[in-house]
This record gives sequence, C-alpha cells and structure tokens, in this order.
Amino acid sequence: MFVLRLAAGLVLWVCPVTLVLADPLPSWNEGAAKSGIIAFVEQSVDPAHSAYVVPAERIAVFDQDGTLWAEKPYYFQIAYGMTQIKQRAAEDPDFGKGNPVLKAAIEGDAETIAADGMKGFLELMVGAQEGMSVSDFKESVRQWLAIAVHPDTGEPYEQMVYQPMLELLSYMRDNGFKTYIVSGGGINFIRAYAQTVYGIPPEQVIGSSLKSEFEIRDDFANVYMLPEVFFDDNHSGKPVGIDLHIGRRPVFAVGNSDGDQQMLEYTTLGERPAFAILVHHTDSEREWAYDRNSDVGHLDTALKAAKQYGWTVIDMKSDWRTVFPYQLDGK
Amino acid sequence: MFVLRLAAGLVLWVCPVTLVLADPLPSWNEGAAKSGIIAFVEQSVDPAHSAYVVPAERIAVFDQDGTLWAEKPYYFQIAYGMTQIKQRAAEDPDFGKGNPVLKAAIEGDAETIAADGMKGFLELMVGAQEGMSVSDFKESVRQWLAIAVHPDTGEPYEQMVYQPMLELLSYMRDNGFKTYIVSGGGINFIRAYAQTVYGIPPEQVIGSSLKSEFEIRDDFANVYMLPEVFFDDNHSGKPVGIDLHIGRRPVFAVGNSDGDQQMLEYTTLGERPAFAILVHHTDSEREWAYDRNSDVGHLDTALKAAKQYGWTVIDMKSDWRTVFPYQLDGK
Repeated sequence: MFVLRLAAGLVLWVCPVTLVLADPLPSWNEGAAKSGIIAFVEQSVDPAHSAYVVPAERIAVFDQDGTLWAEKPYYFQIAYGMTQIKQRAAEDPDFGKGNPVLKAAIEGDAETIAADGMKGFLELMVGAQEGMSVSDFKESVRQWLAIAVHPDTGEPYEQMVYQPMLELLSYMRDNGFKTYIVSGGGINFIRAYAQTVYGIPPEQVIGSSLKSEFEIRDDFANVYMLPEVFFDDNHSGKPVGIDLHIGRRPVFAVGNSDGDQQMLEYTTLGERPAFAILVHHTDSEREWAYDRNSDVGHLDTALKAAKQYGWTVIDMKSDWRTVFPYQLDGK
Repeated sequence: MFVLRLAAGLVLWVCPVTLVLADPLPSWNEGAAKSGIIAFVEQSVDPAHSAYVVPAERIAVFDQDGTLWAEKPYYFQIAYGMTQIKQRAAEDPDFGKGNPVLKAAIEGDAETIAADGMKGFLELMVGAQEGMSVSDFKESVRQWLAIAVHPDTGEPYEQMVYQPMLELLSYMRDNGFKTYIVSGGGINFIRAYAQTVYGIPPEQVIGSSLKSEFEIRDDFANVYMLPEVFFDDNHSGKPVGIDLHIGRRPVFAVGNSDGDQQMLEYTTLGERPAFAILVHHTDSEREWAYDRNSDVGHLDTALKAAKQYGWTVIDMKSDWRTVFPYQLDGK
C-alpha cells in the first residue's frame, strides 16, 4: 500500500492490485519451446530491451493447416470441396466431365485429390467455387461447418483446432501483436470462420485465391469468383503474399511444413531479432505422426533449415499437454 | 463538480471535464456535404440508430490521387518514375531503348506518359522499379520525397495533400473507422509515406503492383519486383482489391474520378446504409478545375452515377475553406 498526497493536503491510500500472473500457455508443457516463446514476447514488449519491437511492427504470422488445426487425413477444405462438387454434379450431370480431380471429388475419393498436391487442391477449389459470389461462398462454408464432422474423429472441424495454438494466438494479441493467418488454403474459405474460430478478422487472413470480377446484378454490387487461380499462397508465395497484404516483415512466424519454410526464412533472415516455430507432428496417439514421408504437410527441408537458422521445433507429443479442445480435462 | 464518497469516509471532489465540442472538420465550409458526413458518422456510432455499424465493420476507403492529394499536372508517381528512370539511363545507356514511355521519361516528357493513361503509368512503374527489392524501393521514394518539389507550386509533395481530407481521415478514425487507401497508384510507392503523411499503416494501403519474387541473397531474405504488372487497382480492380485485402464491404468511400466509380458502387449497392463521396475539382484558383475533358482524373460517368445513387459531390471551391496545408491561416 502506498500513499498519494494531493495538492489540497488530502491523503489518498492506494492499494496496488496483487498481480497473480496466470500461465498464459496452460496447454503447453514446461520446456525450451514454451520458455523461448515467453522470453521472446517479454523482450519484444520491454522498451528497455535491445529486442524491443514498437507496437506497429508486432506482426505474427501463422500457417493454418497442420499449424492451427489438423490437416489429416486431408486438408479440411478438400472435404468441403467434395461436398460442394457432389452437389453441383447432382444439379448438372455434365459437371466436371473429363476432369480427373472433379471426378474423384464426385466419387468421394479424397486420396486421389490429395495425392495431386497443391495442383489437385487448387483445381478442386476452382471447381467448387467458380461463378459464386464471395459472400455466398463464405455463407456456404459456414453452413457446411455447422454440420460437417471430421472423417476419423467424428468431431466438428472447429474442434480440430490446436488448443495450445488458440492460447498462443491470445497471448500474442494480449502483448500487442497483430495475428495473421498466412495459408496455402483458400483466403475466402478461411475468412468464413477465422473470426469465430481464431479471433482473426478477415483483413488479417492471407491465402490462395481465384481470379475474381466485380459485377452489379439487379442493383446489387458484388465480387464473383472466376475459374482461374489468381494467387498460390505456398512456399515463396507466402513471403510475397505477406509483402502484398501487410507490407512489413513479421517478427514471429509459425508453420509446420516445407510450404512454410520461405515464410520462416523471410521472418528470421531480416534486419532484427525474430522468432520462428515449426510444429513437428510426433503424436500418433492424440493426433497424427508424420513428416518427410507424408504428402500432406510434407516436412523435410524446413526441418534442416530449422537447425541451420535456430528455429524452435515443437515436439507435439512432449511439448503439448493438450492437443484438441475436446480433449481438455472435464470434457 | 460532483462528490465521490470513498469507503473510508474520505471525500473526493471531482471536476468533470467541460467538453468543448470542437469542430472536427474546420477546413470544411458549412453545407450539405459537411453536415451529411457528420450525420452519417454520428448514426454509425450510435447503437440505438438503425444505421449503427459495429466497430469491426467500420471500413472507410479513400482513393489517393485527386482525392487525398493533388494529381495535376500529372500523377506525382510519374514525377518519381521519371527521376528514377533518368538515373537508370545515366548508368546504362541501353536502358529503355525502343520503349516510347521510357524514352519520354528520359526526356522529361511527362505529358506523353500521362496521355497514355494507366497503360503509360504502369509501363513507367515497371521501368522504374523492376529488379529492386521492395524495401530499397520504398527507401528511394522517401529520399525523393524529401527533396522533390511540385512542378507548378514549388511545394514539397507532402504539402500537396488536401487539408480537409486529413481532417476527414482523423475524424473517421476518432469514430472507430479503419481508414484504407485504395489507389490506382503503386502499392509500395504509397506505403513509403502513407503512415507519416496520412496516418495510414502499410497494411491499410491497397494499390497497383508488380509481380514479385522471394529470394535469399547473402543470408538476407527479401522480396524483389519483376518487370510485369501483377494487379491494376483501377475501375473494377478497386472492389476486387478491397475484397482481396479487406474481405469486407466498406461503409464509407471517397473518390474523384471514373476510376473510383466501381469502388463507390461496391460500397453503396450492398446490404446496408453506406456513404459515398466524389470530389469535384472546381477550384481553378487554389487548385485545378477539371472533369470530363481531363486525361488525369477523368470524371464523367461517375458524376452521373452520383446523381443516380445519391452520392455526395464535393464542390471543392465552395465546400473547402482551405485546400492545401500551406494555404492555412498564419502560414
């Protein structure tokens, strides 16, 4: 307790609030990863520290698939795309004729699509979205999310997010960081739910996109998607997308695959201290264990770069106390 | 004055601040334009009003050339581009050979470039920027701005901004609006000075851009511009760019030419009340008077659309008490 003496001779007794410093990352086990993150953030916000970052420059970028939510057995957007394409094919028997990716989608053969990597993914995106307005598309994603469940766990996709990452997003924001998603997934797909699932507004989502056009129909102006890829936000596309949308180099980046390597390089090979994280999927019990032999979330060269550049590698099995929110105690 | 009784029996005398409601737009003359803007903003922030806008949706978009700063006798970026290209030609005698736009730039013939419209502008942008890193380019723009002056007024370009628009930007931000620039000009050109000149951070600047690539040179990662236009942020490009970068429909839009028409349509032909402004350059004494007969800032169909859709048209001569900051009283 201390005393404030006011001009008029009045004396005011002030009780300082007892700061109970709650653990900002309760789903993270104690260890080098957790303490490294906290040390970096505490230095970033300390004006007396050499690694201080002014608030405007506190940019944190997160990959989505395999980083913020799961990506096995295939990208969740593929599950949406297959549903959408089946529906289109039911309405138009000629839909997708002669296109092996769309044929696979109609047959529910996600493996064939996933095996085609980003090419298959982007082709599916074109097939599922072309001709739709961006606003109708987002609404359709929301409706799908409300009823769809994960093919292996049976959980709604919104429960397939990583609890430790939700905590990390909040922790960064509580310290004045602007959190962005930078994903190879579709920009409008993610924008449909990023605010409710991650607390990230649409203007802080960067992703792959289709070419689009502006049109007025019946005195209503809107933007419609065309059957052509406009931007592939993977690999080198990630730093290019960050430069296009943000115009600043991030100081904090999180990814999990070789597709994130250039984003982490752009973040850490710059003018000032920065922090980069690779999530290594090592937990075959609570999640999936995979790296260099997986098509989805292929992780090989980025793991070598992590060693070279001193990035923090998260061992999911040992670093995370909880993986999914539905596995939290008491649930 | 009122009294606070504290638990311990202490009495504290508190003087409430007398709120002198200063005019938020002192450089605007009283009239329909000013009162219309204020009425819209007051309704937007009033939760009890039917036109209330939740804070996250308070998106205000501003064209730059001819809207936030002058564009006569030619876009200021053309002045920068000519300086840059002259320098490149001095270093390499073969530079720009066979390209009429670059030839005109070397000869200081801005009229030939301007007469070519956006095509000439974008070609000049390619010639002036290709091969540079985005960060070096922005630094070069800042160095140029520090010494260059306007060809007619002799003022630094930063003094060629519209004082009423600086006030409008602040007024919108004071009411929780996020202010964006949406310009046909180069995204990185504007980002070089948007924070200091307009108080707008780089992530809130949308503009035309060149294709770019990511590269690591000597362990330093950067983004470099290529000799190819990536995005033309004019006409229909404006709503498409807004959807790409923001992912929300604005509720407030300001422009001055036919190149802004689609942005204003996108803003006002939507789901809810919105406000759109066209700046009409009518002041040949303090600024320039031009509309449908001008190549730069051509204004014809948008003026008709303003009538059709009820957009507010600013008559610069009568609506603005001051035009440029250097014309302010006492300067």
